[in-house]
Amino acid sequence: MSTNKLTDIVNASVELFMKKGYHATSMQDIADAVGLQKGSLYHYISSKEDLLVMIIQEALDQYIGRLAEIAASDLPPREKFAQAVRHHLMGIATNLGHLTIFLREAYALTPEQQAIVKRETERYNRLVERIYQEGVEQGVFRPLDPPLVIRTVLGACNWFYRWYRPGGRMSLEEMADFFVDVLFNGIVVR
Amino acid sequence: MSTNKLTDIVNASVELFMKKGYHATSMQDIADAVGLQKGSLYHYISSKEDLLVMIIQEALDQYIGRLAEIAASDLPPREKFAQAVRHHLMGIATNLGHLTIFLREAYALTPEQQAIVKRETERYNRLVERIYQEGVEQGVFRPLDPPLVIRTVLGACNWFYRWYRPGGRMSLEEMADFFVDVLFNGIVVR
Repeated sequence: MSTNKLTDIVNASVELFMKKGYHATSMQDIADAVGLQKGSLYHYISSKEDLLVMIIQEALDQYIGRLAEIAASDLPPREKFAQAVRHHLMGIATNLGHLTIFLREAYALTPEQQAIVKRETERYNRLVERIYQEGVEQGVFRPLDPPLVIRTVLGACNWFYRWYRPGGRMSLEEMADFFVDVLFNGIVVR
Repeated sequence: MSTNKLTDIVNASVELFMKKGYHATSMQDIADAVGLQKGSLYHYISSKEDLLVMIIQEALDQYIGRLAEIAASDLPPREKFAQAVRHHLMGIATNLGHLTIFLREAYALTPEQQAIVKRETERYNRLVERIYQEGVEQGVFRPLDPPLVIRTVLGACNWFYRWYRPGGRMSLEEMADFFVDVLFNGIVVR
């Protein structure tokens, strides 16, 4: 019962943080959204910052677990990289609330928490980088500066959270295929 | 004199909004940063939101003016597009404070102000899209979905504000060339 209530609180916070921003949302707003007295809210969480950490942690866990599976699979690097890009986009699209908070509000964390997020983000980036490097070694990908490749590719994907809204003219799969195509082949005719 | 003080106030706000976030920054913080009484601050601006609007407007003006020049020039589309990407990245790098506020805090604007920002952003996107379309018509660029191309390219560039810090191992020009190369040619060997 208590776990479900906590889930409700987290989900309500995601919505409020998304709409009003983290700083502009008060504990009272969250209590109202889940039908609790503000005092009772503290049975479940100890602060608003706690909630932000939980939301960001959930976003990160989901992301890294699946990417590690892709990286460890037997697929050829080109297919692995395509799957990593798809995974990244799908994760944003299906978890838009959590990811918006993560990508927009992480700067509000304490320095210690920011250090954890940075470490996890770097772990994620290194997994994608390793896939790219495999492709370079096998002669599939051009030998470019690896950290910059990862930042360009994931940057293009991350921006997705700013403009993607469900129910557009293209399906999520079509958009993911488009991203992979542009990042693999570029826009210039040859 | 009054204009210089206003510039000081805007610059101090950019720094504070960057560090603490827009919502967490108080008028008192801004007054302290420029050595004014809080009451005197209201001689220059009427609200914190005013400042946010000014910062975002400055970021947009600078951006759109130069891009319009590139779009209207006689350069071939491929070179125009490369210049647009360079302009976009350089704008972020040389104006990191304003752009961070713009890209991160615009959601805190009122719906009316958001509508203005949206209209200006779309104007910007359409200028880049027109350059791309010229390239498609001249057989230089692949005929892909134009709005998605623009979102992918500018998304990759926008993310720059999250990780670029001056004084790294590569110059800004090298990084801009890298972006143009990856977006033009992709990462796959052919």
